[in-house]
Amino acid sequence: MKVAFQGEPGAFSEEASLAYFENPVTMPCESFEAVFEAATSRTCDVGIIPIENSLAGSIHQNYDLLLRHQLHIVGEHFLRVKLCLIGFPGTAKTEIRHVFSHPQPLGQSAGYLRKMRGVTTEAVYDTAGSVKILKSTGERSAAAIASRRAAEIYGMEILEENIEDNPENYTRFLVIAPEPVIPTGEAKTSIVFILKNQPGALFKALSVFALRDIDLTKIESRPLAGKPWEYLFYIDFAGAMQEDRAKRALDHLAEYALMLRVLGSYPRANFG
Amino acid sequence: MKVAFQGEPGAFSEEASLAYFENPVTMPCESFEAVFEAATSRTCDVGIIPIENSLAGSIHQNYDLLLRHQLHIVGEHFLRVKLCLIGFPGTAKTEIRHVFSHPQPLGQSAGYLRKMRGVTTEAVYDTAGSVKILKSTGERSAAAIASRRAAEIYGMEILEENIEDNPENYTRFLVIAPEPVIPTGEAKTSIVFILKNQPGALFKALSVFALRDIDLTKIESRPLAGKPWEYLFYIDFAGAMQEDRAKRALDHLAEYALMLRVLGSYPRANFG
Repeated sequence: MKVAFQGEPGAFSEEASLAYFENPVTMPCESFEAVFEAATSRTCDVGIIPIENSLAGSIHQNYDLLLRHQLHIVGEHFLRVKLCLIGFPGTAKTEIRHVFSHPQPLGQSAGYLRKMRGVTTEAVYDTAGSVKILKSTGERSAAAIASRRAAEIYGMEILEENIEDNPENYTRFLVIAPEPVIPTGEAKTSIVFILKNQPGALFKALSVFALRDIDLTKIESRPLAGKPWEYLFYIDFAGAMQEDRAKRALDHLAEYALMLRVLGSYPRANFG
Repeated sequence: MKVAFQGEPGAFSEEASLAYFENPVTMPCESFEAVFEAATSRTCDVGIIPIENSLAGSIHQNYDLLLRHQLHIVGEHFLRVKLCLIGFPGTAKTEIRHVFSHPQPLGQSAGYLRKMRGVTTEAVYDTAGSVKILKSTGERSAAAIASRRAAEIYGMEILEENIEDNPENYTRFLVIAPEPVIPTGEAKTSIVFILKNQPGALFKALSVFALRDIDLTKIESRPLAGKPWEYLFYIDFAGAMQEDRAKRALDHLAEYALMLRVLGSYPRANFG
């Protein structure tokens, strides 16, 4: 299984693919867009993308990319994000004066970094990439924040593990592929739709699920380009679209919706 | 009127305050957080913050900051975002080899920049600040993307105006203050609430508005820190909370909600 992910080797997206698949061949990509394109052109079997972090919220760019590509969501995975302070082998935490990483891990360990007193931070584009940059600088008073695996790949040392301020730090990943799957067992379905811009429109849309006791696990809105203050809605609900109940709910929603697309039904992952 | 905004002089937020207030004294702040703190400590009369762009979506950080501060939304303003390619006086567009700006304007003029062939781009932290940086480099083959006003402030030249790929580019700003206002005339109200994590919860919450024909203009969800996959919901609706209909809807919502806070009722702005 060849799995495309965004970032440098050691990225949390790569960690998610190693946890989700058995012995995958992982394929680093420069951007999320490149992951979608690799999956579309079948340069890889599947792509894996982060869609939401339990502290920082949705990765909106990936919602937009789901819409722009004709791929199917075929799986989900929850990863506990454990941040490590990473330095040169043999350095002590007390020697560190400068820390760099992606703005998200920097923000998620802001409390920890404040306690390190007098340490300056610098935002760089990539989390695992910050370890690569650290190594190339040769600066022994600097450290990076990334995954355990990123430290191992670049032969650097973990100065401290689990430095995130809030341990309830999880990222939900989606597996995207050119062909859909039909899940057996517990499932989830992701859809996107556009409603008429009129009072009560979203209420009516949610009624198709509520009236059938279908549990919504997520709702997200994104701007509709070219129509200011009109929105695309993304919803995840429990169940597969092959089930009668879900099928009827989607038929019902199609009566109101100006556009409705099923992004995929897939096995529901255990969280945690 | 002293108005705090995030960014360097010439920022779109400053442009919004000049359009909203008559002869305000504008006060640049380093971060959105600093704007909230200036308003809280009454170092300024009000703060002005972008909350949503019609192409890029919500500025989620400001939703989070609204929750963390005890300020009131007292106004809104819609600004048409017109991007200018800005260079040194006397340079021609054909001489430009390198363009820098904030990632958002770079993204919003990506099509235009592609047509400039062979031009490299660089992301910097601040839109108006990119003109300041440009000036300090002295690099005549470089350009920045920012507002007309930013070009004027730094004595630079507009090489081309309205370079955004999509003209439907508007940003909605909120005016925040330590004291609430009671709007007369057409109004809008912004609220934030938390629901029990159970099937149909959001449907029930929206019913309190739909059953009273109250028009929702925006819904946004943000993660509830420490409770993965539970959410805060932010809703804007037409009307002031002093109106009976709105008061009853909020009383009704309070029956379901674990938390409910009114962020403010304020005069509804014309869009466009």
